Amino acid sequence: MSPLNLPLLDRVRVPADLRQLPESDLTQLAAELRAETIDAVSVTGGHLGAGLGVIELTVALHYVFNTPDDRIIWDVGHQAYPHKILTGRRDRIRTLRQGGGLSGFTKRSESPYDPFGAAHSSTSISAGLGMAIGRDLADAAAKARGETPPRRNVVAVIGDGSISAGMAYEAMNNAGALKSRLVVILNDNDMSIAPPVGAMSSYLARLVSGDTYRSLRDTAKQFGRLLPKAIYDTAARAEEYARGILAGGGTMFEELGFHYVGPIDGHNLDHLLPVLKNVRDAPDGPVLVHVVTQKGKGYAPAEAAADRGHAVVKFDVVSGKQTKAKPNAPAYTRVFGESLIKAADADDKVVAITAAMPSGTGVDLFSKAHPERTFDVGIAEQHAVTFAAGLATEGFKPFCAIYSTFLQRGYDQLVHDVALQNLPVRFALDRAGLVGADGATHAGAFDLAYLCCLPNMTVMAAADEAELVHMVATAHAHDTGPIAFRYPRGEGVGVELPERGEALAIGKGRVIRRPEGARVALLSLGTRLAEAVKAAERLEASGIGVTVADARFAKPLDEALILDLAGSHEVLVTLEEGSVGGFGAMVLHLLSSRGALDDGKVRVRTLTLPDSYQEHDTPDRMYAEAGLDAASIVTVVEAILPARPEAKSSGNVTASNVVSVARRQR
Amino acid sequence: MSPLNLPLLDRVRVPADLRQLPESDLTQLAAELRAETIDAVSVTGGHLGAGLGVIELTVALHYVFNTPDDRIIWDVGHQAYPHKILTGRRDRIRTLRQGGGLSGFTKRSESPYDPFGAAHSSTSISAGLGMAIGRDLADAAAKARGETPPRRNVVAVIGDGSISAGMAYEAMNNAGALKSRLVVILNDNDMSIAPPVGAMSSYLARLVSGDTYRSLRDTAKQFGRLLPKAIYDTAARAEEYARGILAGGGTMFEELGFHYVGPIDGHNLDHLLPVLKNVRDAPDGPVLVHVVTQKGKGYAPAEAAADRGHAVVKFDVVSGKQTKAKPNAPAYTRVFGESLIKAADADDKVVAITAAMPSGTGVDLFSKAHPERTFDVGIAEQHAVTFAAGLATEGFKPFCAIYSTFLQRGYDQLVHDVALQNLPVRFALDRAGLVGADGATHAGAFDLAYLCCLPNMTVMAAADEAELVHMVATAHAHDTGPIAFRYPRGEGVGVELPERGEALAIGKGRVIRRPEGARVALLSLGTRLAEAVKAAERLEASGIGVTVADARFAKPLDEALILDLAGSHEVLVTLEEGSVGGFGAMVLHLLSSRGALDDGKVRVRTLTLPDSYQEHDTPDRMYAEAGLDAASIVTVVEAILPARPEAKSSGNVTASNVVSVARRQR
Repeated sequence: MSPLNLPLLDRVRVPADLRQLPESDLTQLAAELRAETIDAVSVTGGHLGAGLGVIELTVALHYVFNTPDDRIIWDVGHQAYPHKILTGRRDRIRTLRQGGGLSGFTKRSESPYDPFGAAHSSTSISAGLGMAIGRDLADAAAKARGETPPRRNVVAVIGDGSISAGMAYEAMNNAGALKSRLVVILNDNDMSIAPPVGAMSSYLARLVSGDTYRSLRDTAKQFGRLLPKAIYDTAARAEEYARGILAGGGTMFEELGFHYVGPIDGHNLDHLLPVLKNVRDAPDGPVLVHVVTQKGKGYAPAEAAADRGHAVVKFDVVSGKQTKAKPNAPAYTRVFGESLIKAADADDKVVAITAAMPSGTGVDLFSKAHPERTFDVGIAEQHAVTFAAGLATEGFKPFCAIYSTFLQRGYDQLVHDVALQNLPVRFALDRAGLVGADGATHAGAFDLAYLCCLPNMTVMAAADEAELVHMVATAHAHDTGPIAFRYPRGEGVGVELPERGEALAIGKGRVIRRPEGARVALLSLGTRLAEAVKAAERLEASGIGVTVADARFAKPLDEALILDLAGSHEVLVTLEEGSVGGFGAMVLHLLSSRGALDDGKVRVRTLTLPDSYQEHDTPDRMYAEAGLDAASIVTVVEAILPARPEAKSSGNVTASNVVSVARRQR
Repeated sequence: MSPLNLPLLDRVRVPADLRQLPESDLTQLAAELRAETIDAVSVTGGHLGAGLGVIELTVALHYVFNTPDDRIIWDVGHQAYPHKILTGRRDRIRTLRQGGGLSGFTKRSESPYDPFGAAHSSTSISAGLGMAIGRDLADAAAKARGETPPRRNVVAVIGDGSISAGMAYEAMNNAGALKSRLVVILNDNDMSIAPPVGAMSSYLARLVSGDTYRSLRDTAKQFGRLLPKAIYDTAARAEEYARGILAGGGTMFEELGFHYVGPIDGHNLDHLLPVLKNVRDAPDGPVLVHVVTQKGKGYAPAEAAADRGHAVVKFDVVSGKQTKAKPNAPAYTRVFGESLIKAADADDKVVAITAAMPSGTGVDLFSKAHPERTFDVGIAEQHAVTFAAGLATEGFKPFCAIYSTFLQRGYDQLVHDVALQNLPVRFALDRAGLVGADGATHAGAFDLAYLCCLPNMTVMAAADEAELVHMVATAHAHDTGPIAFRYPRGEGVGVELPERGEALAIGKGRVIRRPEGARVALLSLGTRLAEAVKAAERLEASGIGVTVADARFAKPLDEALILDLAGSHEVLVTLEEGSVGGFGAMVLHLLSSRGALDDGKVRVRTLTLPDSYQEHDTPDRMYAEAGLDAASIVTVVEAILPARPEAKSSGNVTASNVVSVARRQR
């Protein structure tokens, strides 16, 4: 439990307790919640700045709304640590992002106060609208039965970065037309992970520019267009701080059919509470409340950081100093960024595109070297991919650097605009495979499956950071169609980096080791190669010779290499950090189509990620669970390796055996 | 060539010819272009209404802009038939959508006047922005070399339905921030395929409500904010028809950083030409020209049709009567719609969601029976999926009816919001597999691959229309997680429809025929079943016994059935109308992981769609090309079926054979 003395917070186990407190206690409660949040994250690491920015908003929402019957949906969910503390999870808050502990995001299975799980951005308005329509249908059915259903509210809390994504726009467009009762809180901190970009961001900045926070009298006027006079008067009386004048703001949201309220100060409970109460009691139709907050609020080291303490490792609360372990090798992300800079130094057609993740993808490094060729399009993967396709038609060499899991957002664009037109867009897929503490929502598990099925695609995976350097060079050189290369989260394995990358032969793998008389072949794609080598060494200690190869390409496959391995070993095991349907499936398609499995001479197994969503944990434990570490590989091989013929020579040649013997001789 | 007497059009082979004509000839040319378009589509069938709506716009764009150096990108591309006629393809215009003929959409490989291929909506602004930025970078490089690059323009033409999609919003948001010179023509005909929905649509309707077309003096005023006085005066002088008054319109686009011009009458060349010239010569920054057109314009039968002649089969030009062949069986789409109505009649939790395709998906039928439970969210697949997820959290049973190819737009939402949370959203995937005349852009080739890789998913494919009835019932009953069922474009095979659907056992296939002593097993998923049965009959005529099974489920697999088939036949062939990485891959994963391929007793082949994008053609020819018809199946089986042991008894038992014999006996 908490080492801090937090008497008010100790009285709040769930929001119902909170709602027993007098309003006058809430500022103190917010202070205690802030202290607890900072202390908890100092122990676990995680997302700090976003949670600190919504402390007062979290308190106000749970105070005004009747959670969990009222639904509060936190977009992305990384700002929900204070929400978790207030909703029965305080006793486990220091297990955040640890194996077996609380998720770093909202999660339905974790609490009834999390009505919708999140992690990818911009989903909250769609989900909330679905819930609101569900409520309306249920209410209508209840009324038809003569019942009087209780009034239930749905609140989506979305950041200014997230609301600029196309998905949020689609949801607003639909909400404005459906006219269901839905509250959207726009949490505008002028910061997503990086400073936000795009015209919407400028628009929001204009809305809050100068000293234009709405006074309560002004917000009451906004409600005046919507609410009965009695409520108007109440709100007007509640006014304490009149500052700024009423400007005509929020037109854009109003044109989308929302009633717009704001901007208001999101750290001032005296403003938040009456506005939220009014919104709660408003008549039908969607309302957008524009709340201005400060990311990292109330913790000086976070406020002072460039990213406002977005994501931190464990730190000392007093100094704010983060206890970052010294890395053993450069991160893949950095290796990618630096390799791309070199490519661009030599070729002015190279451009880099990120969808609001410049530092996560290494595009921030690139942007320092080549600012005029760097494009951060905002949280907009759909646009990012087709924008890159447009650049490719003009002879440019676009590198779209997107996390594996986020490229799912641009999948149709990848299929329809890039692959089908065979345009040379390069996809740098960071965070491919398991991602540790970020858990299942961020795992890059499916890219091999969703890319290998596409005609025209070339798909590579880097086995180590030196390979990544070569793959950037390969992608740069490959100008005849789309190409993707994937690499994992985190540090490389520590190999020496080449001075400059060399373009690899497309569709050619490499043999790492091939001892005389090897009975087993391990064919790895990506960074599981190191475990394959370890497994080979252990097997060899038991006298079993093992070939290890790095496929490099999931598409096109190195057919000659794979057919050779299958034809000359008793066991062939493929390894990949991806789902079923990916590299292993492509190998099986190849082997079966060529008849390489017809004679039963080789036993093939495809080791993939499990067909389940793995919970967050340390990477090592996750790999072991997935059966993708050296020990698991050894177990698989030992289980299927045929006994030596000498030991099994007693077999009788039966009639049915003759059939297959004969068949083999054709 | 054209049977019509069209003297002006005959002089225009390419746009350069058009630009030689005096402006006074253009109205006549437009009339001839309209006649030619109607006549061509009367022969081929295809998209008629959209092209007729942009006749004048097409003429004006190619007259004012220097194509193909200036880029014109037609969003969706189904309105580009007149564009094809003017850009060197008139001699082939009566081959539209026929095998070997012109595509029904824009296509890069077809013409340099098609700078970007399309078919899925809302891509044009992203692609155009990429081209504009490419031009800017190239211009900057040229200027750095002391050159003076020619002024090049990029024009994206997008409909009011398409611009409401999130992707278009993402692109505008980015364009407004980048400030590159880009022209977006909003072709507002208040009709996409169906009447458009959503708040954006209402907003556009307000902009054009009443008699508020901009007069030329008014549009000149709009330019006045942007252009030098000389141009302002020229435009003002050109004014001929002043009607309506200048209302404050287009704010929303201006808030996104666009200069907004319009609305103007898109059938009036005297208005279009000066406005487009002004836009062409405008200074930097994105401009949106709001053009109001009428879908089907100038052809009475199209103007009178509810869908404004959106897509037609061959017709008689004079009467407009379409020569629709009498269907032999109900279309899958209709069977789905009617089955869903029955489910909803009995269960008020059933709701239907379409993303702007009510008639294409059968949701139009549903909406007549259950309007309050029908949700057309607009062209917004991302939102559609997560909106459905939100409904599912409230205990509803949402059916998302989306074409296989369009679900690619909602892939991340399907992964992150539905499958990962294991929410019972039902996906009705229409147009799965090959789609004939619509070609590669609309083929539903990848859903099996992109769905089967996802944990928690259940994936079915209907073998015929009766199976579809049962699969709707199965999806209705399956309330513990997400489920998808796929079915093809077009008519069913003519089997009797059951009175009501029965929920199938999850993960259980069915054996269609299994003769005594069968040596071959054909395991089909989906509607290739009929070809499998045909192939079986032909093989049996040659004395080869063939089992045929319908897998029904691609996930979870009927493991017992598949292992049994593999264990008791010499050959097992899987069939599916989908890419590699789908059903066949799942079968191979299963067989290899269980060691069922270890002994070489069964030869397995997976027949899938080819690893290439198939051009539009008749379905029969496309299936033959894909190797998925009965003849191809027979060929594959005959090639790999082992010779009868009697005929091959001369094989010697060698040492290496003994190994595998022994192995099989373990």
